[in-house]
Amino acid sequence: MPDTPNAALGRLMAAEVAEQPAVLRRILDRGTPAIAQVAEAIRSKEQRFVLLTARGTSDNAALYAKYLVEILLGLPAGLTSPSTTTLYGARPDLRECLVIAISQSGGSPDLVESTRVARDCGALTLAVTNAPASPLNQVCELDLDVLAGQEKATPATKTYTAQLLTLYLLIDRLRGGDGGTALCLPEAAAALLARQSEVREIAHRYRFADRLVITGRGYAYATAREAALKIMETSYVAAHAFSGADLLHGPLAMVDSEIPVVGVVPDGAGGRAMYDVLDRLRELSADVCVVGTAEAVAHGTVGFTLAEGVAEEVSPILEILPLQLLAYEIAVGRGLDPDLPRALKKITETH
Amino acid sequence: MPDTPNAALGRLMAAEVAEQPAVLRRILDRGTPAIAQVAEAIRSKEQRFVLLTARGTSDNAALYAKYLVEILLGLPAGLTSPSTTTLYGARPDLRECLVIAISQSGGSPDLVESTRVARDCGALTLAVTNAPASPLNQVCELDLDVLAGQEKATPATKTYTAQLLTLYLLIDRLRGGDGGTALCLPEAAAALLARQSEVREIAHRYRFADRLVITGRGYAYATAREAALKIMETSYVAAHAFSGADLLHGPLAMVDSEIPVVGVVPDGAGGRAMYDVLDRLRELSADVCVVGTAEAVAHGTVGFTLAEGVAEEVSPILEILPLQLLAYEIAVGRGLDPDLPRALKKITETH
Repeated sequence: MPDTPNAALGRLMAAEVAEQPAVLRRILDRGTPAIAQVAEAIRSKEQRFVLLTARGTSDNAALYAKYLVEILLGLPAGLTSPSTTTLYGARPDLRECLVIAISQSGGSPDLVESTRVARDCGALTLAVTNAPASPLNQVCELDLDVLAGQEKATPATKTYTAQLLTLYLLIDRLRGGDGGTALCLPEAAAALLARQSEVREIAHRYRFADRLVITGRGYAYATAREAALKIMETSYVAAHAFSGADLLHGPLAMVDSEIPVVGVVPDGAGGRAMYDVLDRLRELSADVCVVGTAEAVAHGTVGFTLAEGVAEEVSPILEILPLQLLAYEIAVGRGLDPDLPRALKKITETH
Repeated sequence: MPDTPNAALGRLMAAEVAEQPAVLRRILDRGTPAIAQVAEAIRSKEQRFVLLTARGTSDNAALYAKYLVEILLGLPAGLTSPSTTTLYGARPDLRECLVIAISQSGGSPDLVESTRVARDCGALTLAVTNAPASPLNQVCELDLDVLAGQEKATPATKTYTAQLLTLYLLIDRLRGGDGGTALCLPEAAAALLARQSEVREIAHRYRFADRLVITGRGYAYATAREAALKIMETSYVAAHAFSGADLLHGPLAMVDSEIPVVGVVPDGAGGRAMYDVLDRLRELSADVCVVGTAEAVAHGTVGFTLAEGVAEEVSPILEILPLQLLAYEIAVGRGLDPDLPRALKKITETH
């Protein structure tokens, strides 16, 4: 047991999770002129592909953006492996390629170096960070501040949803949208966070779990990955994320009544495609917690119902909130301090 | 306990693992004319971007190919999410884009449909399968047979290494290579497989492990992912793969002396970049099994030494072999039948 008194566990993380409605409102109120300007600069040159570069939590934001780029912009997209540049000296031809580098701190040397090389190789480069003066901002032609304010807890929470909303507004703007779909988010986020006691009930169920599988399809796959990372970081549970389709190609063998499953099943095409997966899990007598529509929750053992009527492409900005709370509640319920996970620093430098 | 007698457990998988040196030789002896022809067809049109489409084990082959494309061909590359097409109706502009769809059976409906759409959207499409008459072959302009022969065990083994070698020879040919680097592989593979008793010793160590972390960087990251999938499928252990860099960004918190780690540390830049990770793991008193060079093995708790002098870009074709044996030995040691993992079919259909 950590020697911190119990009431103090996770104070920073709790405060930053709670701040998210205000951060989302700040981006909608004050972030849009900069986003419009960056969109204009991107549109002034023809872009044929989009590459997204990130690590850790930001890599889950990158995955969300990859779906947005492919679906809303109709451009092929890829997630980069920075090591191809930093370890193997790759110098790909990146003319007509937009590289979006996403990072809270903008400081990880491999990200900065691979983005600098991408610019040298002809890419148009954009930094999306929570640190406007960072080295990553400095190597890029364009940059956006996600306006989340300083994040002190090691597990990233408010910077993640701030990245998602900033990337959504940018990509929506690039296709000529006005961001209207996102206006409901601050209020909807506040309504979800007010239901912490429901999440605490679910967390009790996982008090002694040392493994967990989290699954979602389409846009919600990013949510599944980020939820798994949050739970690993804070509670040291081996939380495994799979897209619903990939789960059926192998890892399903691992799931039985001993490994709890969390399914993210929002309204929309990705959520509807999860019903096959929920049915297979039921055949295996798996214990499934559904975070999703009321209809989907009825397919699970337990659940957390999301409000209806939110467009699927912005739903990840909301779905993650009860899962951040779940990570927090599992950690605190075990007497762990989620603010200071063992073995981690807030800023990880990889080369 | 399964009711199959112990001697019969995993007979199919064992036979197919053992067949790999012969399959690699077959590809080198008989596969190269078709590979040269496909390379010629690809080179006749300018390609700016490569997308790789696959699921399950084939997705790990796709990840390997992504590194090859970026490093050896100098082209940006991405792994696709078939759901953007099949669930959300994305119709990206894929002119000057090569789409390589990789599948053992060539039968999964989402893969076939997303590849058909990619061709409609202007991509040059290539199927790499172990089933020359498959629906996937039929929707593609170009195709390659990986010549592995029928695979009967549910966990893919010989088709995986056959995919890797076929993709390597294709990409090497596209850059004007003659495949000489790969000629040593059949003999080197046979030498590794002859050391099964060493692997059995290591497997004893994991008899009661229910979690496992596998890590590698660069080319070896594909090996780490495939090894994790094989162990999940056959032994139902929650085996988690992370790139060495990503491990430091969060999941490291989960690793302690209770969770064994397998590090893949071959000769070359990716392997050298793993020493930082091995040092951090040692600080955490983690139990680390190193599959790699003699020098790297000296950094682990236990290890399996790979022969030196193999080029890093073909090393994944060898590194996976002791890890396939490890998956087999862990399963058989628990009285499980790796040929028939619970809950899985040989051909998974996802939509």
